Amino acid sequence: MNGPVVTQDLYPSRKSPEPGTMERRDPVVWGKAGEGPLSADELAFFERNGYLWMPGFIGADEVASVKEELDRLWRSHADDRTDEVIREPRSDEIRSIFRIHETSAVLRRLIADPRFAGRARQILGSAVYIHQSRINYKPGFRGKEFYWHSDFETWHVEDGVPNMRMLSCAIALTENTVFNGPLMVIPESHRTYVQCVGETPDQHYKESLRAQEYGVPDDASLRLLAERGGIETPTGPAGSVIFFDCNLMHGSNGNISPFPRSNVFVVYNSVENTPLRAFGPRELRPHFLGSRDFTPTDAY
Amino acid sequence: MNGPVVTQDLYPSRKSPEPGTMERRDPVVWGKAGEGPLSADELAFFERNGYLWMPGFIGADEVASVKEELDRLWRSHADDRTDEVIREPRSDEIRSIFRIHETSAVLRRLIADPRFAGRARQILGSAVYIHQSRINYKPGFRGKEFYWHSDFETWHVEDGVPNMRMLSCAIALTENTVFNGPLMVIPESHRTYVQCVGETPDQHYKESLRAQEYGVPDDASLRLLAERGGIETPTGPAGSVIFFDCNLMHGSNGNISPFPRSNVFVVYNSVENTPLRAFGPRELRPHFLGSRDFTPTDAY
Repeated sequence: MNGPVVTQDLYPSRKSPEPGTMERRDPVVWGKAGEGPLSADELAFFERNGYLWMPGFIGADEVASVKEELDRLWRSHADDRTDEVIREPRSDEIRSIFRIHETSAVLRRLIADPRFAGRARQILGSAVYIHQSRINYKPGFRGKEFYWHSDFETWHVEDGVPNMRMLSCAIALTENTVFNGPLMVIPESHRTYVQCVGETPDQHYKESLRAQEYGVPDDASLRLLAERGGIETPTGPAGSVIFFDCNLMHGSNGNISPFPRSNVFVVYNSVENTPLRAFGPRELRPHFLGSRDFTPTDAY
Repeated sequence: MNGPVVTQDLYPSRKSPEPGTMERRDPVVWGKAGEGPLSADELAFFERNGYLWMPGFIGADEVASVKEELDRLWRSHADDRTDEVIREPRSDEIRSIFRIHETSAVLRRLIADPRFAGRARQILGSAVYIHQSRINYKPGFRGKEFYWHSDFETWHVEDGVPNMRMLSCAIALTENTVFNGPLMVIPESHRTYVQCVGETPDQHYKESLRAQEYGVPDDASLRLLAERGGIETPTGPAGSVIFFDCNLMHGSNGNISPFPRSNVFVVYNSVENTPLRAFGPRELRPHFLGSRDFTPTDAY
C-alpha cells in the first residue's frame, strides 16, 4: 500500500466523552481558475459555501442512458446478498449499490469524464482517484431519512484519509423537489470540524450504512452551524449535479411522497491524500467503502 | 347523546381486504360568500383545492401570547401520563396535548374567535362545535414523519361522524420552512375517498397516535391523487393559518433540522353532523379524540 506516512491525527473524533468543534486545518480549494473548467466565481462560491450546485447540468438523453444502466445494475444485483448492496431496513428494497466504477464500464467512463473528474481535479489541485462510488435509490412512500453528518469524519476515522482534500459529486437522475427527501446542506459548515463522541466498534460499517449510531454530530454543534449558515435544499430537474466538500454537514429528511429519487454518487480524493491506517478502529473499512486502488482517473 | 339517527355507512372503509376509492358524496362548501369573512374567490379556492392557506394571518404579538400559553401548558403537563398527552416514540418528549379548548381559557377564546370559528361556520354552512383540539410540537433533529392520511377516514370509522361536513384549522406558531417537516397536502384529493384495508382493533387509538397501522391509504391510490393534484407545502412565517377539508390527503416528512415546529390544531364539525356510533370498532374513541360535547362555539 502506498500513500503518505501519517504521524499525527489532525482531526481527532470519537476519542472523548464530550463533543467539540475545531477549525478546519486544510484549504478548501487547492487549485486555481484557468487550471480547469470552473471559473474564479465558481471556485470562490465553493470555497465560501462548501458546495456548487449546477441545475440541469447534463441533458435528458444522457440522463436516460445512465438510468438505463442503473436499471440494468438493479436487476443484476437483485439477488446479491453481499455487503456491497444496501437494502432498506424494513422493506428489503435496494437502496445503494457500491463500487460501480469497478463493475460498470458505462459508469466508470462517466466518473472519469473531464466534466466531473476535471472539476474535482481543479478544486483539489492534483490528480484524483475514486475513494468510493455508488448508485443511490430513495424509494417513494417509505424512503428513510439520513441524519446530519460530515462524510470526512467517517472517511478520516474509519478509512484513514489524513486531510480534507476530497469531495463528493452527486448526479441526480430524478427531479429533486422539496418533497422527495432531497439533500439538505448547511452552507459554510465545511470550515468547522465537529468532533463526535464515542468509540467505533470493529465492523461497525455493516450497521452504519442502514442507521447511524457513531460519528453523529451533537445537537449544540448542529444548531450553531445551522444558525450561522442556514440550510439549503438544492432542487432542480434530473441531470442536476452537485459538488460538495468532504466536511460539509449534510443530511436528508425521509420521503413519504410517491416520487422516488436516484443518483450516481462519487467521492474523488487527491492522489496526495491516500489513507494509510484508520484513526479509530483497528482495521480499515473494506475496499468498496474506502478504496485501496489509487489509480488516477486520468489512467482509466 | 343527541345527533342524527344514522342508518347507513356512506363512506365504508376497513371492511374489505382490497383498497378502493369512491367519489365524495357531500358538498365541500356548504355556505355562501356574504355569510362570513371569506370572499367568493376564497370559497372557490377551498372548494377546488380542499384547503386555504393564509400566510402571516395573525401578528407577532398574538403569536407570542399564544406561545406563552403553550409553554405554560407544556410545563403543567410535564408529568401528565394520561392518554391526552402524546410523547415521541423514543425520546419521550411531549408531541401533543389534547382537549385544550376545555383546559385552557386562552385557547378556548382563540378557537371560538370569529376569525377562525366564523370561517369554519361559513364553509360548513351551520353553527360548529369542536370535535377535537390539540397543540402539536414537532421537535428539531428527531421529529418523526406523519404518513399520508385523510382525517375523515378515522373520524368516520372510529368516531362515527356520518358526513364530510367538518374541517381542520391549524395556527402555526413557528415558521414553516421546507426543512422542518411542514404539512404537505395533495390538492383536490378531498374529492376522492380512499377506502383502506383491514379491520380496526378496539382501543386502537392508543397506538395510532404514535405510529399508524390502520386507516393507511394504499400506494396506488396515493400515486393517483398526487399525479392528479400534485403536492403543496404551504410555507410562511409564524402566525400563518391553514383551513383544510376533513378528507384532504395530507402528511409530513420527518424533521432533522434544528428548528422545531409547533401549532394549535382545531377540528370544527357542523352541529348537524354529530356522531352517533362508530362505523368500525365496537366503541367510540374517548372524548378527548372525538368530543361528546356538541356545544356550539357561539355559546362559549
